[in-house]
Amino acid sequence: MSLDTAQFLADLDRLRQTGAYRTGVHRPTFGAEDMESRHWLAAAMEAAGLEARIDGIGNVLGRHRGPGPHLLAGSHIETQNQAGWLDGVLGVVAALALARAGLPVDVCAYADEEGHWGDFLGSRSLIGAVDEAELDAARNRHDGRPLREALREAGLAGRERLRLEPGRYKGAFELHIEQGTQLERAGMRIGVVTGIVGIRQWRITVTGQQDHTGGTTMAERRDAGLTAVRLLAALDQAMPMAAGPRSVWTTGRIVLEPNAPQIIPGRAEITFSFRDLSLEVMDRMEDCLRRTVQESNRRERCPAVLEPIGHTAPSPCDPTMRAALREAAEQLCPRAWTEMPSGAIHDSQILARVMPVAMLFVPSIGGISHHWTEDTKREDLALGLKVLAEGARRFLAS
Amino acid sequence: MSLDTAQFLADLDRLRQTGAYRTGVHRPTFGAEDMESRHWLAAAMEAAGLEARIDGIGNVLGRHRGPGPHLLAGSHIETQNQAGWLDGVLGVVAALALARAGLPVDVCAYADEEGHWGDFLGSRSLIGAVDEAELDAARNRHDGRPLREALREAGLAGRERLRLEPGRYKGAFELHIEQGTQLERAGMRIGVVTGIVGIRQWRITVTGQQDHTGGTTMAERRDAGLTAVRLLAALDQAMPMAAGPRSVWTTGRIVLEPNAPQIIPGRAEITFSFRDLSLEVMDRMEDCLRRTVQESNRRERCPAVLEPIGHTAPSPCDPTMRAALREAAEQLCPRAWTEMPSGAIHDSQILARVMPVAMLFVPSIGGISHHWTEDTKREDLALGLKVLAEGARRFLAS
Repeated sequence: MSLDTAQFLADLDRLRQTGAYRTGVHRPTFGAEDMESRHWLAAAMEAAGLEARIDGIGNVLGRHRGPGPHLLAGSHIETQNQAGWLDGVLGVVAALALARAGLPVDVCAYADEEGHWGDFLGSRSLIGAVDEAELDAARNRHDGRPLREALREAGLAGRERLRLEPGRYKGAFELHIEQGTQLERAGMRIGVVTGIVGIRQWRITVTGQQDHTGGTTMAERRDAGLTAVRLLAALDQAMPMAAGPRSVWTTGRIVLEPNAPQIIPGRAEITFSFRDLSLEVMDRMEDCLRRTVQESNRRERCPAVLEPIGHTAPSPCDPTMRAALREAAEQLCPRAWTEMPSGAIHDSQILARVMPVAMLFVPSIGGISHHWTEDTKREDLALGLKVLAEGARRFLAS
Repeated sequence: MSLDTAQFLADLDRLRQTGAYRTGVHRPTFGAEDMESRHWLAAAMEAAGLEARIDGIGNVLGRHRGPGPHLLAGSHIETQNQAGWLDGVLGVVAALALARAGLPVDVCAYADEEGHWGDFLGSRSLIGAVDEAELDAARNRHDGRPLREALREAGLAGRERLRLEPGRYKGAFELHIEQGTQLERAGMRIGVVTGIVGIRQWRITVTGQQDHTGGTTMAERRDAGLTAVRLLAALDQAMPMAAGPRSVWTTGRIVLEPNAPQIIPGRAEITFSFRDLSLEVMDRMEDCLRRTVQESNRRERCPAVLEPIGHTAPSPCDPTMRAALREAAEQLCPRAWTEMPSGAIHDSQILARVMPVAMLFVPSIGGISHHWTEDTKREDLALGLKVLAEGARRFLAS
């Protein structure tokens, strides 16, 4: 295996030019720059000996021409608006470097992971989980433009949507930037991902009685904002007892009505969510949330109603693939790696429905992502590629 | 003293026609209907033997022509938009009934208590607390129209603004609807007001670090929303220990930034206020608030900054005037009256700066006010007038 790190870094620098925005990139899915980068990638795949195709939803799949067992490797190539040069692209270019090094790897850029048009349209299409009606209905999240129109202008209308061949892959790898500060803070250079956390998101609606603050005694009040505050404070006390060591939970949104200084809030709406890698932990956290709301309703004058508004299941990484990556990391950067969950979502969680998956993280400088200042040290990028290649080699040999 | 209750109720019914809106009234200050009601009032004052003038800010003042000691009595005649028929008007028409009954009363409709154009412009002008620059700058709070333009169209431009004659008054009475449910709930028909509460309003700003919920561990977070919740929960625990029996305190407004489900709030802004009749109690509550914020800053990662954004002092009612009203109430509706603070603001708190004041409340059906369904039983309106007149008589004789 001869890994061309210089070519890998040159590829990253090359793609950074397409849609350059300050020191980052603006390359939303199906825009001119995005399509240019997809065509560049297909040509680079062919040059690396792969059989490349761009499919009807924009997936770029380069198939290894030799015998198996095969691996799948990749990530996404489009960016968030005015965002960074590494988010997604890193995993695609690293996969290409693996193929160039002679590993039996199919390389894929899964279309629209960033969700400009939908929810994992590319990777879900590859596993057969997107029907035509969903594409008919899809609109751009920023300007409402129909997806079909964008596909037509991108020259993708009428193309077949590819499906991953059942049984072809021993597993799928994805190298990605961390998009957090855990590696940097711990002085680590590599993160072996234990899995992609699941998310459960909830709406809590508290109903009280809107009144003027001057004329309503404390004993008469039904203050929905105050009940919401007490409920959230109770949740803040209870949740650490139910959560796991890497769980996160967040109240991102509170809306009082009418939200005026001298009016007692008649209604409060809270958006609360939690994430963990373990279904068991998530069930415990959900139980804690339900009991806390129930207790609020036992104590308070203003009833609280709890509703789920979107759940995704956790996607654990494959133990054998993780072991291969751990061994590779210990070989190439001893004691400078750690295991960690991915708090963000990735295409690998879609692929996990049909094959074993594993992910590898490199540090994000200052944890910054989804912003044009996103960056990672070049030596960390190169190390990420090397650990990925060595991990893939070990896994294939296992 | 011969009190014409029938004429008093007829006057209320008459004014209800001007700007009628469903069962209520829409008569914003300086609109055509408002000016019509001011001219009607001036004529009614003259008919009652008073010397009536409408001044340069719309105050309608009817002076008693006989010797003193004099009383001042009145309230406001304009309404909130699409609001009730009694808020303000009751006190003006009752004062007129007192004058008709031969009491030495100057009757006044203080302009714009409802604040369509400013902050107690009429009563403050009468005590010399409004300069021309304030009128130049004043704009309609709904549509931004200059006050000067409205005064011109109302025919008031160039008129002198009247000043209350120093030393002329033994005290000022104001009869008003309660605008709350305390009398109704207690089965009482008359409220003798102990004073108009003071208000201290505050902005609490909590600064944290905006981050994505997925990539930031609980230990790393600086969640401004969570600090705000804990601070408000602490305040909810501490404030009852500092407050008086009739104090109220309210968080009317909470704004998180960016207030998005999957983003850790980087900033939280709270509007908190409290009201009480006692300066000593208000100082204790302020001390409690300051200590709670200080304690939050000792414990939390996200600093909280406390800023005052508007204080009004409490205005206690005059003890001798209160005693006269209590005696009148006990005479006319024994055991069906109570003492209570006014949680809402009234012109009397402005007049209190230059003379003794007292207020009397009649029950509001369902506590409703600032809405066209506002109402009070006719027998309670009549009783309110009788207690006011008897109280005024007793106070004059004291």
